[in-house]
Amino acid sequence: MLDPSRGRAATITSPASATVFTMVLTQGPVSRVEIARRTGLSSAAVTKAARPFIDAGYLFEMAATERTGPGAGRPASPLAIHPDREFFVGVKITDDDLIGVVTDLRAQVVEEAHRSLSARTPEHVVAELKALADELLGRAPGYRERCHSLGLAISGDVDKSTGLVRYSPFLRWHEVPLGELARAATGLTVTVENDVKALTVAEHWFGEGVGASSFALVTVGLGIGCAVVVDDRLVAGARGVAGEIGHVPVGGDSPPCHCGGHGCVEAIAGTPAVVAAARAALGDETLTLDGAMAAARSGSPAAMAVFARAGEAIGRAMAAMANLIGPERIIVSGDMPGLAAYELFEDQLRAAFTQQAFGAAADCRLILRPSPFEQWARGAAAVAIQTLFTLQER
Amino acid sequence: MLDPSRGRAATITSPASATVFTMVLTQGPVSRVEIARRTGLSSAAVTKAARPFIDAGYLFEMAATERTGPGAGRPASPLAIHPDREFFVGVKITDDDLIGVVTDLRAQVVEEAHRSLSARTPEHVVAELKALADELLGRAPGYRERCHSLGLAISGDVDKSTGLVRYSPFLRWHEVPLGELARAATGLTVTVENDVKALTVAEHWFGEGVGASSFALVTVGLGIGCAVVVDDRLVAGARGVAGEIGHVPVGGDSPPCHCGGHGCVEAIAGTPAVVAAARAALGDETLTLDGAMAAARSGSPAAMAVFARAGEAIGRAMAAMANLIGPERIIVSGDMPGLAAYELFEDQLRAAFTQQAFGAAADCRLILRPSPFEQWARGAAAVAIQTLFTLQER
Repeated sequence: MLDPSRGRAATITSPASATVFTMVLTQGPVSRVEIARRTGLSSAAVTKAARPFIDAGYLFEMAATERTGPGAGRPASPLAIHPDREFFVGVKITDDDLIGVVTDLRAQVVEEAHRSLSARTPEHVVAELKALADELLGRAPGYRERCHSLGLAISGDVDKSTGLVRYSPFLRWHEVPLGELARAATGLTVTVENDVKALTVAEHWFGEGVGASSFALVTVGLGIGCAVVVDDRLVAGARGVAGEIGHVPVGGDSPPCHCGGHGCVEAIAGTPAVVAAARAALGDETLTLDGAMAAARSGSPAAMAVFARAGEAIGRAMAAMANLIGPERIIVSGDMPGLAAYELFEDQLRAAFTQQAFGAAADCRLILRPSPFEQWARGAAAVAIQTLFTLQER
Repeated sequence: MLDPSRGRAATITSPASATVFTMVLTQGPVSRVEIARRTGLSSAAVTKAARPFIDAGYLFEMAATERTGPGAGRPASPLAIHPDREFFVGVKITDDDLIGVVTDLRAQVVEEAHRSLSARTPEHVVAELKALADELLGRAPGYRERCHSLGLAISGDVDKSTGLVRYSPFLRWHEVPLGELARAATGLTVTVENDVKALTVAEHWFGEGVGASSFALVTVGLGIGCAVVVDDRLVAGARGVAGEIGHVPVGGDSPPCHCGGHGCVEAIAGTPAVVAAARAALGDETLTLDGAMAAARSGSPAAMAVFARAGEAIGRAMAAMANLIGPERIIVSGDMPGLAAYELFEDQLRAAFTQQAFGAAADCRLILRPSPFEQWARGAAAVAIQTLFTLQER
């Protein structure tokens, strides 16, 4: 059906072309009349913007099936997307493995693969990245021809505009030009983003965020992370710092946090803090998180109290965020092993949120659900998709 | 110079007309070429958008004085504003008086007046509002002819779109249609806004916020308030709740707060909490805020500690906000009597902010300055100006 020999679509060239394509991608099928209504563009502008994407095989006109509203004189032919017109590789980089996916244009995962890391040097990680991408793109004919973009998600301080990893604590990287290295190795266009932001982009364009003017995503794991979308834009922070919910001081004067502050939610509810508290509470210096969860599930009041305190701290920090920003909904997610403990603190989290949220902020919908690493890799692919179809600032 | 018999400008009719007029109003004088460059509009669109405002006497072309850049073939004639083409009345409503101002188009205060309230009923307040507006507009010829808008700023939960005061704790108002009542009494177009948001609008269009893509304003007084501008828009909250920095739980488990939460900064650093703490610390149940400040200034360690704790709580809550949102700068302001105590807690506020801010968020500029009630009234006028020149959502 598709002719892969066709050129790629003309890149996004105007705000109108970004708006129209994005609307069909994230909310389609949708008629031109409806696009014009929602965006305020003229019908002619919608048609002009859609044309290059139709010519290049990204969009197509569905058969006319319905009239839209009393004023419409002609039947509407909704615009829809060919999801397999282009593929994207997304990789989540952790401190000991790479989790990779191939997705289609709608960020649906069509392939998955993992590789363990035997070292944390940028050279080794990039070599494994190339091997992983080759493995993924070799799995079916057409992937390689229709894939030009690689998205990478990594925890830490990332400059997305240049692909520079300024600081990644778990990998112990400083100033690593990951985007450049990965581009040279793979030949793909590379986008690098902070992993929490990447997960948020996937929700924003392809998940719970669709149709919400604002939402927040909170991740629970080694750290407590957060990213916020307001007025349909990811809040970036004037100095690159935003969404640092982990350092909301909900604990009063204690405990001290690695950030230099005190009482931070991360110092109470991050995995290392939970394990340390459980070891102290149970008098077992070798206890693991799994052991602490097992103790709590078997009814140990001391172990249960540790998880309860973590849930309360997270709920209070989320309430502070909701009080300040007022998101329509909050998605609470996390990586392994943080997410496995949900059942042990969900009640306390919800209760603390409700108690500390101000007025109508307490009505904010909380959606708790795990995000295995494949979801983070999908987030990386979503960032590559979003980058390709967003008008880049000059 | 101006002909007051001319009609008012055609109201804002398109995004382009709002963009162009607002840019000249808040950043002018500015040439058409520069407007086109900054907004992405074509030169023709800029000229078309400016025309009705020139015809109606709001904008004028300055004499050509300079060439703008190497590519410009013709000298630039910057567009500038006639600030006295229209006037606005702004009123801050407190629980015992009305503070009113007249401003020009640029929100420069040209008149001020006060009226005491002998009752807090909506009827009495509206009657005094009318008397105050009459007094202000009668002070100079031309005010009345060129003033069509009244802005009101009031603490509490306000629905700006309808002018309804849902709840104002200090006035003990519930569901008061203040906008309607004031319009009927004065004959002016009335806009009602929460007072902290009004002060923020004045900063956004005519103060520290000009040129900043994001900033926050924090007010210290009876309560601890906040409003945040991100990507040039006031964050409103999906349920009308946003900027509630007063209920960031910086104090851990205590003290309890009137909101139902605990450890809230407002329960530590709001004026009533400070007075209560000073009374307890000094063993004087009749102590006033003035008395507590006098004791601290005369070196009483117990009194000094009360203000130090308030400053620390505010600084920690501001850091939580900066960590989450990353504003370019934060303006710390307040009403009487909160602002009078600044010197007693500014050091602690700054130190706590720096300690709790995460990474580069600590570099956020803090601007501490008082806002006497006239500034809040000016904010109300700024809201009226902004409402008049913003394209209203359909």
